[in-house]
Amino acid sequence: MRILVQKFGGTSVASLERMQLARQKVLAGLQRAEKALVVVSARSGETNKLLDLARKWSPEPDPAEQDLLLSTGEQISAALFAMLLKDAGIRARSCTGRQIGIRTDNVFGKARIRAIDKDFILKTLEDFEVLVVAGFQGVTADGRITTLGRGGSDTSAVALAAAVQAQLCEIFTDVEGVFTTDPNICPQARKLDRVSYDEMLEMASMGAKVLEIRSVEFAKKFTVPVLVRSTFSDAPGTFVTQEEPCMEHVLVSGIAYDRDQARITLRAVPDRPGVAAAIFTPLAQANLSVDMIVQNPSHDGVTDMNFTISRKDLSNALRIMKDIQDSLGVTEILFDDNVAKVSAIGVGMRNHSGVAAAAFSALRRENINILMISTSEIKISCIIEEKYTELAVRTLHDAFGLSGPPGAGEDMETVRPSR
Amino acid sequence: MRILVQKFGGTSVASLERMQLARQKVLAGLQRAEKALVVVSARSGETNKLLDLARKWSPEPDPAEQDLLLSTGEQISAALFAMLLKDAGIRARSCTGRQIGIRTDNVFGKARIRAIDKDFILKTLEDFEVLVVAGFQGVTADGRITTLGRGGSDTSAVALAAAVQAQLCEIFTDVEGVFTTDPNICPQARKLDRVSYDEMLEMASMGAKVLEIRSVEFAKKFTVPVLVRSTFSDAPGTFVTQEEPCMEHVLVSGIAYDRDQARITLRAVPDRPGVAAAIFTPLAQANLSVDMIVQNPSHDGVTDMNFTISRKDLSNALRIMKDIQDSLGVTEILFDDNVAKVSAIGVGMRNHSGVAAAAFSALRRENINILMISTSEIKISCIIEEKYTELAVRTLHDAFGLSGPPGAGEDMETVRPSR
Repeated sequence: MRILVQKFGGTSVASLERMQLARQKVLAGLQRAEKALVVVSARSGETNKLLDLARKWSPEPDPAEQDLLLSTGEQISAALFAMLLKDAGIRARSCTGRQIGIRTDNVFGKARIRAIDKDFILKTLEDFEVLVVAGFQGVTADGRITTLGRGGSDTSAVALAAAVQAQLCEIFTDVEGVFTTDPNICPQARKLDRVSYDEMLEMASMGAKVLEIRSVEFAKKFTVPVLVRSTFSDAPGTFVTQEEPCMEHVLVSGIAYDRDQARITLRAVPDRPGVAAAIFTPLAQANLSVDMIVQNPSHDGVTDMNFTISRKDLSNALRIMKDIQDSLGVTEILFDDNVAKVSAIGVGMRNHSGVAAAAFSALRRENINILMISTSEIKISCIIEEKYTELAVRTLHDAFGLSGPPGAGEDMETVRPSR
Repeated sequence: MRILVQKFGGTSVASLERMQLARQKVLAGLQRAEKALVVVSARSGETNKLLDLARKWSPEPDPAEQDLLLSTGEQISAALFAMLLKDAGIRARSCTGRQIGIRTDNVFGKARIRAIDKDFILKTLEDFEVLVVAGFQGVTADGRITTLGRGGSDTSAVALAAAVQAQLCEIFTDVEGVFTTDPNICPQARKLDRVSYDEMLEMASMGAKVLEIRSVEFAKKFTVPVLVRSTFSDAPGTFVTQEEPCMEHVLVSGIAYDRDQARITLRAVPDRPGVAAAIFTPLAQANLSVDMIVQNPSHDGVTDMNFTISRKDLSNALRIMKDIQDSLGVTEILFDDNVAKVSAIGVGMRNHSGVAAAAFSALRRENINILMISTSEIKISCIIEEKYTELAVRTLHDAFGLSGPPGAGEDMETVRPSR
């Protein structure tokens, strides 16, 4: 059975008119596949409205009750979408997360999918052409409703696609696909035709909010072919797929940035074993997630320790640092919340050296000071002063040839194949 | 295990403040019982909002999808109420209709309860003091969500009380109980301390909208003691119970009225066998429910046929009558939608004669013309001109001694025990 999975985000189901456009996409999909699983989010704004309600009712809403509350948003979308499809003559029905058999663990608010009742789906698809599934939700082994956390409808869609071995998982959203960078900052940004799971993971974690990161992990794990595209146009979208040989020819696929960054510097940390653990263990215990960590080479037995965290966690992190300052013997705690992170991402880096150097040179030419650097196999990230964010994004976008026609940046002089 | 069932209607859960008052009632209830099942309606206005949404989305919303949509209203109330209880230190959790195991038939929009999973409830009550149940909803054998129709939360509550053999089913609403008549029309209306199931059934079907009629049928069938009372006061409320000997001393317990009445008269209907069937079968097939039917004694082989229906069905009914007019040989079709029904209800009538005569005399003294009469064992109903509704209600309320202190009307001269 050729099954297509289609997911429509909050903006795509926000009104009757938009849902009618979404329905067109389902009808078009049924030309290409026999059956479709249509995963819907809550109408945009709905989840926040329900969260506000919970916070009004309780200073610290019980997570299980909050999940039951939040799950109504997607339930409403699913019922309305199924009505529309039936009115178009499609044999369709809605399914809640429980009905479609999305079994999760007991971590309310951020549940992880454990299993999906594939047999129920295939059996139900004998009677229906389309199952409209309430995204973002599942059910525990003992029958309580869970939610998968923000953006969880993407995860629902990819997990369903994996379960039924769908031919494709289309993620419909309000943009035309994945771009080389944010078009609001860099008008030359191009839509990518293809991007690898790994690149998408780096971009998702960098604030390119097209696809929720857990859904990309899922897609990678089960090799689900994903197509990100717009509900509001016929543009072909971006395929998120396994790495393919042709991808290696492109050094850098995209430039991401993240303004939600704050830097903390501990001056004159005694350079002795266990000191890093003493710093980062209490932060982890307080559930503050540290991003980059840079330790300067030590001089005279002391070193500077730099790390970045989300801005909302800054005051908490500073408090914790002050608590341990004396016991560590740190002379000074500095912080800076006027910083941002820019990153160049590309699987091509795996096989080429010199990409980092090219990035640093490009930034230096614009007199952008690099405060911290971190690199991975397919990513180079730099912490810079926040005011340079747009300039840095445009500079890197140009430097790696992303602003011209596809392929223009491949012959950069400073970069050479490393094998 | 002493279990109390408490049901809170839409006005009682409409806001945080009101739900906090409702919570007080639960806390008070837990003084009297070990465990409580708290059934909640959707916040007032919510169900209509969802219905409007359905109608906007589809000219004729699929009933199953509409039920999934509507069920979210009670789901939200249950989650919020459970949060409040937990914040007060109560071990509480929410349950959807499916979770608590309210099994229904497949009649979406008006499902009937088939079974309740008593074992699940008793087992879950080992871990929790209070289960907050989303009213108005259930689940079919194959796992689809149903709703029980308007006022269905009352039915949920009574059915749950029957299933667990609760010591009491308290129906909390925005009035203090069941009144001898509508206090807006008759300021002397008194709250009744007790009323029998049968009286309550007649009152419910007459537009005294305190308790949904199906819930009263359920309560009667399973002898569930019901107490109707206010969320917003400490007044003791009205017990709805089995008929008790003391009730027979009161001839009339209450006066009900219903303005949603229209009368159709077929003039000169040939008085031959099968004519009534010819008139009422097509009405029934069109799902129009006829209330009173009065056939005048025939003269010269023809008779007048009078019947009443709901005003919204009048035009439909007239169309159907016109269709069959010629084949029946009816000379004229008349109608009147300026009529209302007033009724006197009381189990005491079973054992006393003369109650009807007393009612007619009282109306005649005020020059209120009686257009149609129908009587049952415990009820006398009169169709009158609508403009006399308030006067008729007050007149009957006085005539049967309901305006004075309890018991004042029992020695009416015109009424005597019939055994």
